[in-house]
Amino acid sequence: MPSSPFTTRFGLALPIVQGPMTGSDTPALAAAVSQAGGLGMLGCGMRSPAAMAEVAAEVRRRTDRPFGMNLFVQATPTPTPDEATVQAALQRLAPFYAEFGLVPERPARWCEDFGAQFEALVAARPAVASFTFGILSAAQVARLQATGSTVVGTATTVAEARAWAAVGADAVCASGMESGGHRGTFLSPGHEAPPPGGPSVDDFEASMLGTLTLVRQCVDALPSIPVIAAGGIMDGRGIAGALALGAQAVQMGTAFLTCPESGIGPAYRQALTQAGPTDTRTTRIFSGRPARGIVNTMMDGLRADERSVPPYPVQNALTGALRRAAAQAGRADHLSLWAGQGVAQVRPLPAAELMALLAQELQAASA
Amino acid sequence: MPSSPFTTRFGLALPIVQGPMTGSDTPALAAAVSQAGGLGMLGCGMRSPAAMAEVAAEVRRRTDRPFGMNLFVQATPTPTPDEATVQAALQRLAPFYAEFGLVPERPARWCEDFGAQFEALVAARPAVASFTFGILSAAQVARLQATGSTVVGTATTVAEARAWAAVGADAVCASGMESGGHRGTFLSPGHEAPPPGGPSVDDFEASMLGTLTLVRQCVDALPSIPVIAAGGIMDGRGIAGALALGAQAVQMGTAFLTCPESGIGPAYRQALTQAGPTDTRTTRIFSGRPARGIVNTMMDGLRADERSVPPYPVQNALTGALRRAAAQAGRADHLSLWAGQGVAQVRPLPAAELMALLAQELQAASA
Repeated sequence: MPSSPFTTRFGLALPIVQGPMTGSDTPALAAAVSQAGGLGMLGCGMRSPAAMAEVAAEVRRRTDRPFGMNLFVQATPTPTPDEATVQAALQRLAPFYAEFGLVPERPARWCEDFGAQFEALVAARPAVASFTFGILSAAQVARLQATGSTVVGTATTVAEARAWAAVGADAVCASGMESGGHRGTFLSPGHEAPPPGGPSVDDFEASMLGTLTLVRQCVDALPSIPVIAAGGIMDGRGIAGALALGAQAVQMGTAFLTCPESGIGPAYRQALTQAGPTDTRTTRIFSGRPARGIVNTMMDGLRADERSVPPYPVQNALTGALRRAAAQAGRADHLSLWAGQGVAQVRPLPAAELMALLAQELQAASA
Repeated sequence: MPSSPFTTRFGLALPIVQGPMTGSDTPALAAAVSQAGGLGMLGCGMRSPAAMAEVAAEVRRRTDRPFGMNLFVQATPTPTPDEATVQAALQRLAPFYAEFGLVPERPARWCEDFGAQFEALVAARPAVASFTFGILSAAQVARLQATGSTVVGTATTVAEARAWAAVGADAVCASGMESGGHRGTFLSPGHEAPPPGGPSVDDFEASMLGTLTLVRQCVDALPSIPVIAAGGIMDGRGIAGALALGAQAVQMGTAFLTCPESGIGPAYRQALTQAGPTDTRTTRIFSGRPARGIVNTMMDGLRADERSVPPYPVQNALTGALRRAAAQAGRADHLSLWAGQGVAQVRPLPAAELMALLAQELQAASA
């Protein structure tokens, strides 16, 4: 089996990181992947500090293998959108809420406090602390490293990969446009510091690089730290392709979503197993940040508002109650069905069986 | 060096097809690539039947190695856009023509006649006859095969790859969204026959699959014919990655554009060597069909008209005189600077030297 400084560091039998999937991953999934020789992850972007401590403890009860935790890097204090913006956004969503007999309301808060989440992460001391949506300071990176965590930054462009290397990250996850869920973009192309109001819609568009070209170029740009390839990788041959490009490991999210250990409901699960290769699209309408998911009624219905919905986390909070109601009602047409472009290749197997199959395929592809 | 049924068929020393680049490739480039052990190509989409015969003869004077020719599959007879559409399009272009002291005019004709080009292709008997923008009938495929040509169809989705296999193509070129120049999309996702008016803007968008996921899925979908990977492949490691995904060869266009043998002018050449990884975008404004190129003044200036310009070949013909004037004036800001997402990796070397370097890199990556 191919080994690399990254896999050796954690004693991984397989060069596979389970993609953090905020809202869909579980301690059971992370533990199963780690136990099978990969690196399980907990997406903690929307977990409270207390919940973070709890899920980390739960993974440790299930396995003594290393695992990782991921956070969304968000501005602190949390945002304070003006009332007119919020009311306009709620009005657009009203017909969709009405489908479930609900009236949309201004939520009690917009997101977790990143500062408090960061402290919880330091305290949890996961083997890997990974980040998306933004970048840490060199001091924050050093603080995590001092507690023994390996710091991994997510990059959607070569410039973002260099920025993470510059603040001392131990590795970079290069996330191509094939990836499911939220885009991690945090720089405006041509600029070295994150824009104050976050990236514009055009910045996100310019940063839609394919996994193949992004990984290849990041490997060249970062000769001294490992690159982890993410986006569209679903099987052993996909892993072999990414390794041949120079990646030291891959990160796979969608492939693990259909494992029984994931936290998704039956409607989402069914949508994943039925989706074809051209059924996903990137949209801002669910959360205010571009994210790839399976096209459905709500995505189509709000398409005209693609550019006008308020930025993350405001729109995300405004659609939260709606998505919860849709999940409870088993209505995939009003859910955010995050999935990558490889979704047609999902194999609904227990995580341990999927890992064994991936090992076998990778061995065959590398032979 | 990795060999495959595809490379063996043509006695290729390297699994490299030079991407056809209508308007930018030359017999000198194609011959140099073929002579160096790859497969040189002539993009004939905008060449007249007489010009096709001439360039094929020119390659044969330079080398006895196999080469290929590519055509745009277009509707016959050529289109007859209504006068109002043409006038509106000309009006939008007037300020750009004015930069060069020109007034835009209705062109004498919209495009070459595909039927006549097809006959010229049959007569030229290239080793490879490749196609994009549409699909042939089984009878047309058989006619080319009867003269000894290997037929390669371009696919941007798995469904398009299957459609080419169904009409008897010998191989499929899977062209990911990283590719430079025109998208070859010809099906509406979810449909098996090409739509009468050509794909819609939404169809093109849904078909923007990354090279990694597209190649991986096409290889699985077509177990009995070779898949050629295209899009973002610029060096030996990129080639190794594509082969590990299951491709039997790669097609590289942008990598050969900066060879001295290519037909591009100094302004375009300079733009290619200066472009960064996020400097390309897909646009309809130059030709009416989505194509990837380096962002410039004209692309930005007509951005609001992205969806409203008339479809290919009408817009292409309407901007033709403007682009010729810009090229003559050395003005990259008004040229269509077609390039793929790997453009930052271009190496301006003679084709033979570039091929030798690719061979060396591929050997190192496969070791």
